[in-house]
Amino acid sequence: VSESKLWGGRFTGGLDPLMQAFNDSLSFDKRMWRQDLRGSRAYATALVGAGLLTEAEASELHRGLDLVAAEWQSGSFVPAPSDEDIHTANERRLKELVGAPAAKLHTGRSRNDQGGLTPHYLINTLVSRAESETGVLMPGYTHLQRAQPVRWSHWLLSYASMPRRDCQRLADCRARTAVCPLGSGALAGNVFEVDRQALADALGFTSGVTWNSLDAVADRDFASEFQFAAAMIGNHLSRLAEDLILFCSKEFGFVTLSDAYSTGSSLMPQKKNADSLELIRGKTGRLCGHLVSLLMVQKSLPSAFNKDLQEDKEGLFDSADTVSAVVRIADGVVATLTVHPEACAGALSCDMLATDLAYYLVRRGVPFREAHAASGRCVALAEAKVCQLHQLTFEDFQTVSEKFGEEVTQLWDFETSVEQYGAFGGTALESVRQQVAAFRRWLGDEQK
Amino acid sequence: VSESKLWGGRFTGGLDPLMQAFNDSLSFDKRMWRQDLRGSRAYATALVGAGLLTEAEASELHRGLDLVAAEWQSGSFVPAPSDEDIHTANERRLKELVGAPAAKLHTGRSRNDQGGLTPHYLINTLVSRAESETGVLMPGYTHLQRAQPVRWSHWLLSYASMPRRDCQRLADCRARTAVCPLGSGALAGNVFEVDRQALADALGFTSGVTWNSLDAVADRDFASEFQFAAAMIGNHLSRLAEDLILFCSKEFGFVTLSDAYSTGSSLMPQKKNADSLELIRGKTGRLCGHLVSLLMVQKSLPSAFNKDLQEDKEGLFDSADTVSAVVRIADGVVATLTVHPEACAGALSCDMLATDLAYYLVRRGVPFREAHAASGRCVALAEAKVCQLHQLTFEDFQTVSEKFGEEVTQLWDFETSVEQYGAFGGTALESVRQQVAAFRRWLGDEQK
Amino acid sequence: VSESKLWGGRFTGGLDPLMQAFNDSLSFDKRMWRQDLRGSRAYATALVGAGLLTEAEASELHRGLDLVAAEWQSGSFVPAPSDEDIHTANERRLKELVGAPAAKLHTGRSRNDQGGLTPHYLINTLVSRAESETGVLMPGYTHLQRAQPVRWSHWLLSYASMPRRDCQRLADCRARTAVCPLGSGALAGNVFEVDRQALADALGFTSGVTWNSLDAVADRDFASEFQFAAAMIGNHLSRLAEDLILFCSKEFGFVTLSDAYSTGSSLMPQKKNADSLELIRGKTGRLCGHLVSLLMVQKSLPSAFNKDLQEDKEGLFDSADTVSAVVRIADGVVATLTVHPEACAGALSCDMLATDLAYYLVRRGVPFREAHAASGRCVALAEAKVCQLHQLTFEDFQTVSEKFGEEVTQLWDFETSVEQYGAFGGTALESVRQQVAAFRRWLGDEQK
Amino acid sequence: VSESKLWGGRFTGGLDPLMQAFNDSLSFDKRMWRQDLRGSRAYATALVGAGLLTEAEASELHRGLDLVAAEWQSGSFVPAPSDEDIHTANERRLKELVGAPAAKLHTGRSRNDQGGLTPHYLINTLVSRAESETGVLMPGYTHLQRAQPVRWSHWLLSYASMPRRDCQRLADCRARTAVCPLGSGALAGNVFEVDRQALADALGFTSGVTWNSLDAVADRDFASEFQFAAAMIGNHLSRLAEDLILFCSKEFGFVTLSDAYSTGSSLMPQKKNADSLELIRGKTGRLCGHLVSLLMVQKSLPSAFNKDLQEDKEGLFDSADTVSAVVRIADGVVATLTVHPEACAGALSCDMLATDLAYYLVRRGVPFREAHAASGRCVALAEAKVCQLHQLTFEDFQTVSEKFGEEVTQLWDFETSVEQYGAFGGTALESVRQQVAAFRRWLGDEQK
Repeated sequence: VSESKLWGGRFTGGLDPLMQAFNDSLSFDKRMWRQDLRGSRAYATALVGAGLLTEAEASELHRGLDLVAAEWQSGSFVPAPSDEDIHTANERRLKELVGAPAAKLHTGRSRNDQGGLTPHYLINTLVSRAESETGVLMPGYTHLQRAQPVRWSHWLLSYASMPRRDCQRLADCRARTAVCPLGSGALAGNVFEVDRQALADALGFTSGVTWNSLDAVADRDFASEFQFAAAMIGNHLSRLAEDLILFCSKEFGFVTLSDAYSTGSSLMPQKKNADSLELIRGKTGRLCGHLVSLLMVQKSLPSAFNKDLQEDKEGLFDSADTVSAVVRIADGVVATLTVHPEACAGALSCDMLATDLAYYLVRRGVPFREAHAASGRCVALAEAKVCQLHQLTFEDFQTVSEKFGEEVTQLWDFETSVEQYGAFGGTALESVRQQVAAFRRWLGDEQK
Repeated sequence: VSESKLWGGRFTGGLDPLMQAFNDSLSFDKRMWRQDLRGSRAYATALVGAGLLTEAEASELHRGLDLVAAEWQSGSFVPAPSDEDIHTANERRLKELVGAPAAKLHTGRSRNDQGGLTPHYLINTLVSRAESETGVLMPGYTHLQRAQPVRWSHWLLSYASMPRRDCQRLADCRARTAVCPLGSGALAGNVFEVDRQALADALGFTSGVTWNSLDAVADRDFASEFQFAAAMIGNHLSRLAEDLILFCSKEFGFVTLSDAYSTGSSLMPQKKNADSLELIRGKTGRLCGHLVSLLMVQKSLPSAFNKDLQEDKEGLFDSADTVSAVVRIADGVVATLTVHPEACAGALSCDMLATDLAYYLVRRGVPFREAHAASGRCVALAEAKVCQLHQLTFEDFQTVSEKFGEEVTQLWDFETSVEQYGAFGGTALESVRQQVAAFRRWLGDEQK
Repeated sequence: VSESKLWGGRFTGGLDPLMQAFNDSLSFDKRMWRQDLRGSRAYATALVGAGLLTEAEASELHRGLDLVAAEWQSGSFVPAPSDEDIHTANERRLKELVGAPAAKLHTGRSRNDQGGLTPHYLINTLVSRAESETGVLMPGYTHLQRAQPVRWSHWLLSYASMPRRDCQRLADCRARTAVCPLGSGALAGNVFEVDRQALADALGFTSGVTWNSLDAVADRDFASEFQFAAAMIGNHLSRLAEDLILFCSKEFGFVTLSDAYSTGSSLMPQKKNADSLELIRGKTGRLCGHLVSLLMVQKSLPSAFNKDLQEDKEGLFDSADTVSAVVRIADGVVATLTVHPEACAGALSCDMLATDLAYYLVRRGVPFREAHAASGRCVALAEAKVCQLHQLTFEDFQTVSEKFGEEVTQLWDFETSVEQYGAFGGTALESVRQQVAAFRRWLGDEQK
Repeated sequence: VSESKLWGGRFTGGLDPLMQAFNDSLSFDKRMWRQDLRGSRAYATALVGAGLLTEAEASELHRGLDLVAAEWQSGSFVPAPSDEDIHTANERRLKELVGAPAAKLHTGRSRNDQGGLTPHYLINTLVSRAESETGVLMPGYTHLQRAQPVRWSHWLLSYASMPRRDCQRLADCRARTAVCPLGSGALAGNVFEVDRQALADALGFTSGVTWNSLDAVADRDFASEFQFAAAMIGNHLSRLAEDLILFCSKEFGFVTLSDAYSTGSSLMPQKKNADSLELIRGKTGRLCGHLVSLLMVQKSLPSAFNKDLQEDKEGLFDSADTVSAVVRIADGVVATLTVHPEACAGALSCDMLATDLAYYLVRRGVPFREAHAASGRCVALAEAKVCQLHQLTFEDFQTVSEKFGEEVTQLWDFETSVEQYGAFGGTALESVRQQVAAFRRWLGDEQK
């Protein structure tokens, strides 16, 4: 068996079969067949430029590469026991198909230098719902305590803000990934005066070529950075999931998930569980775990390539698949859930307007700290009288501060309260509409 | 499709196919078919005891469970689209095979309450080599600087010490895992007065039954603890790998790996790479990553079962497989490598005996700190004279301290130096033999 | 400055001051002064046994060590600029106090071989409340959906179950930590025939001595294992915190925290936030982070001591402090909170007895799967009629299954429901009392 | 005590002192005093614009803020027991200094919305050495096996490539951090029509204002992203440290560290340890641990602010300090080490030119795979004859392939070999110079 290995020229002992299984990466890196073949196609062209292949040979190689691609495409590609990874598998098959020229393709190239997904639609769904459901008021929470009334749309847009940053991070990562390492050889560079920039252009690497071959063959920054971006996406969606799991509990009752994203219990027929959201929440662990794995793999590796780096791929592919799945499931959940405006409104109470009471005094010239303390005493007074804030009389208010006027008893309207927050980013209707418009503009720019 | 789900009684909408794929766990939990069937067998017997199944029904169920087992064993089990996990798959198939009684099996049981490997041979290999190669001396390193001469066997035994602690941790973990959760229902307990201790005995849970059903259905301590033990094994083997990678570099040259655990370069035919060891080293990241994943999944989960916990399995299985592989590969590497005694000895030099020089003075009544300083001055003197320590003359030593006698020039024998470290755990021959004996006794006890 | 360093005999250049700050560990390892002095005391005695110190010298050293201890105790110990770590600081001071004999203390010893807290009271508090508040019923949740009624005491005991496992893990860790490394020297062992077992006994290491000096000087398994145990404690408390944060929200309203563990809002005077619980929940990240740090530090370190290992301490101390704080705060929170039985009971509804409905049919001979489906259809029927399950008439039930008898309309009592779960670990009163008794026995055993 | 808390208006019970210590963050967030005061200054100005403060009051507040700043600057600021964090501490002191107007400053502002370092010089040092030491040849390694000769300068530049990406990441992070959250209130926004963009400009937030107040008060993306960037810096420096630790071992002997970055052994006077590099390597764990902590803290937090987020700061500050220290130490190490050209050259051997042998055949028209195999057979032949490749005769080569001409025996010059790698990024002199020039240009652009 070892005879057919690319590097098998000098070894006399055979490889432990377990070691072979341990060493081989074809089972998970075969998904890169397209990228590998595309790289070979470009490299063949570059070798013609360097005078190392004739036009006829390159043409024959291109034909063969198309045949190999067709086999992968149709599912008919048959790996051989000696195929260590996607690179050797493709080259072995190419040689079977076109013969001699295939052996020239690897000239000056080492396997070490061979080697998309975004949450935009989730943002779009959140923004669309936000736009059409601005009339729903709900409690805004801090510390999971009802704090102040906010618009349901405002809440939706808060979860559009997080993936927007994720998109920015992915774009930065993509730009840094689009640096072509081809032409780095095993570690020392390329001896055949290949035009590296032309190679990069042919392969769609839009950020130029790597600067140093020793660095290029062992750089996994792009993978690490993607793993971090994925972990952040997971974290953001875990927060969305947490909120929605709360909201569809009996205690909150603000939303109902569609059946498409709920499951039942094998023992309790009355239950409808938000499994989709719990799985999204749980996947955060997986994404963060992959990030830690990759960081740990790279820690204190000596210069240039070491086989440890083969560990980058499974986690990377799994994170890409996981992010893709959680974003799509989250999108489906948000798009199909039903919000219950009356339940949301029912959770509002006058003590959530205690801040308004303080602001009322501020507008009457009371310094904020004093106003805040006075408001707190009103809350305490209502508790003592076992009533709600809006049931306090003008006389009650006067016992707390003489600055209260009679109109204080008219303060208790949630819609009016919300409309105060008109600065950009706030929960007033106009502010929410500005946010929607800002997201729409940004989504439009992203599509360009 | 949703009709055939166990919990499908009341749902009217269908499940998003992507959500179904996202939700299902059969692809990875099917490896637990044996445990699931064994649990069902015991539960059927327990239901007879509780008067809920007749003997005849139980017997029919046992027959059916054997048939299902046979299908898994032979690879002929065909999952149905509605099989969510290994538990539903087995029950569906059982029903097809034995009909009515199958529907009784789940009585009072929820899926939430359904559901080995050790490095001893690696230790044995290390101890065996240590026993037979006591004659080889090599430098002991701290800070990767040659520090003092030690026996190669002493080095081997240091790497037997680490997995011994791993075995202890795995044993502790196993004892804590062997607590039977069956009889916890979905969360509130069991209503049919099942004899839980009898169930535990029947299933081989040697540490009794869980104490609280709310805790039992969501406890993943056993999985977390295994993941930690696995991460420690990975860490220990990464250190062994690091040392051996250094030792088989040209610069050290202390050992040669067998071809069975080496691979070559596609570009550099002269190279022989210790890929096996680099992969072992790299797998540490994966093991630690799985631990982080699982810890993160559990963080701040509310009471009892949440679907997030489904995330425990893939990582657990992968860690078990990975640990099994790295231990076996490490065992193969250690068993088949060649040590080069002359290269090891060639790396010893007299300045490594500077400590002996200090001890020499201590034995002549010089306080240790003074002796150490004097020894340091001898090293500096040798450097100044561009010679080795053993080339200093008696007169040279006298310039440093009058306490040096003439016999100081006879100090420079590595074997003699090593033989000083006779306390248990040290590198003297007798101490090494005591360590070998201690390991042999311990391995013998473990086999019992 | 470098002259006064213990290892400064041969160096001629000075140390970069930044490097000195970077290198020194006294700022965080000084908390080990007691352990270091105790180790020196025992080692002095051992050196007398080995004939390297006279009784008089040892006595003088013991006197000096007491003086140094007194300085630390009173806060009057003044570190010198040359003190790199607690070991060098103590030795330097000892020398100032007793002179010559101090210089002999380090004979054959290297700094490399110098080198509690439990959640029992939290368990005790949980068990005590569980014992005295068995009459409170509340919803048990899975997937944060109300599932079945359980006792408040049962819920409390579920959170006593987790730290019980933590105590077991800490005990295992302690036993494995209690192995004495003293007598390992820098790496090769001890040359002065020190009685290592006697040293271990004198220092209270109850699990004997380390087996291999190369391993002993670089082993950080004990620290890693503690960090893992701490991370698990954090995880468990984060779940308790999550539940309680939910329970003291307006939506649940099951409990009220005492003012001692709540804080207010600078902007919203009506709010009472469970900051204590949120901090407990957040500390989980810190504990898990320290575990990852330490695992990563050890990954692929070469043999014996490397300075990287100095990184073990800060995280270890911080985790010990953090665990101690979160356990005490959690204990205070649980001990002082008020539970609201009527609010808990108010959250129970008849659909949570759907499982009982299925069990009712099982007792009348219906196979469980059929019974479960019938129960699900009853739930659907009640939803269609916009009523609760207990408002369905006998005729309604008959349309679902002829197996229903008239007494089915008497099924709807929560106390009766709960009392069904009588198997050990369940939520029936007797079962809860058995759990309390089991915990009390275990706590009693632990105190011995 | 609780009376003086900002939110103490309605609470009647006191706070558990332990809880107070647990809750307070002043001990670590006081380092942000400058930022907090600057924010208050800008907010005061904004309140004038909103008509809520008079010019005179604002002027008085500015004077007071300057006084507080002076106290922090001089170290004379005395925290009060009631100071929970840097925000409350500054406001309390401001009130003491200027009286009434201080109470107005918090109007409409919540603590939730209050709240540099780069490796360029290390890059500069690496590039400078690379420029001046181009004549030194050394082995390039993959898998820690000598692979091909490369220039020492090429190796240095590979470690300049990594921090260059780090600088890019930090710049991206900085741009995303420079989004002003001020004006978000506790969660709902700002009611006083503060000009948020003017606030952002005044405070130097160059990337505008946050879009959504609910998101803004709980967003810790900027901290997470910094932690990731820091972890990557740590990882890169751990690789540099690993290489240098190897290079200054006796076995490699390529470099000597200056005394300023080395330390000695308390037991072995002859040793000179690269502690500085080992600490750099070890700090990677700490940086990665902090990242994990912060990701875990954020996982599944419900909407808007929760106290868990207080955990962001200590890790952030420690990472900033750590990165600053490791970069400076690494810079010092690289700037002051001595390279030994003759030792580097001595590690080159002819078998490292086996690739050249293959390229030689390629240039004579042999397909690369055949050439590679032939080269491998030459290596095997030399091994069999127990000689070096350059000692094979022309006849020897002919037995392997007739394509070898006589000039093959002239192939064995390392300088010539290195000069083949002329493509950009390679190890030829001209390519190295191009790299130096590219780095110089980039450093120049960064300074603008």
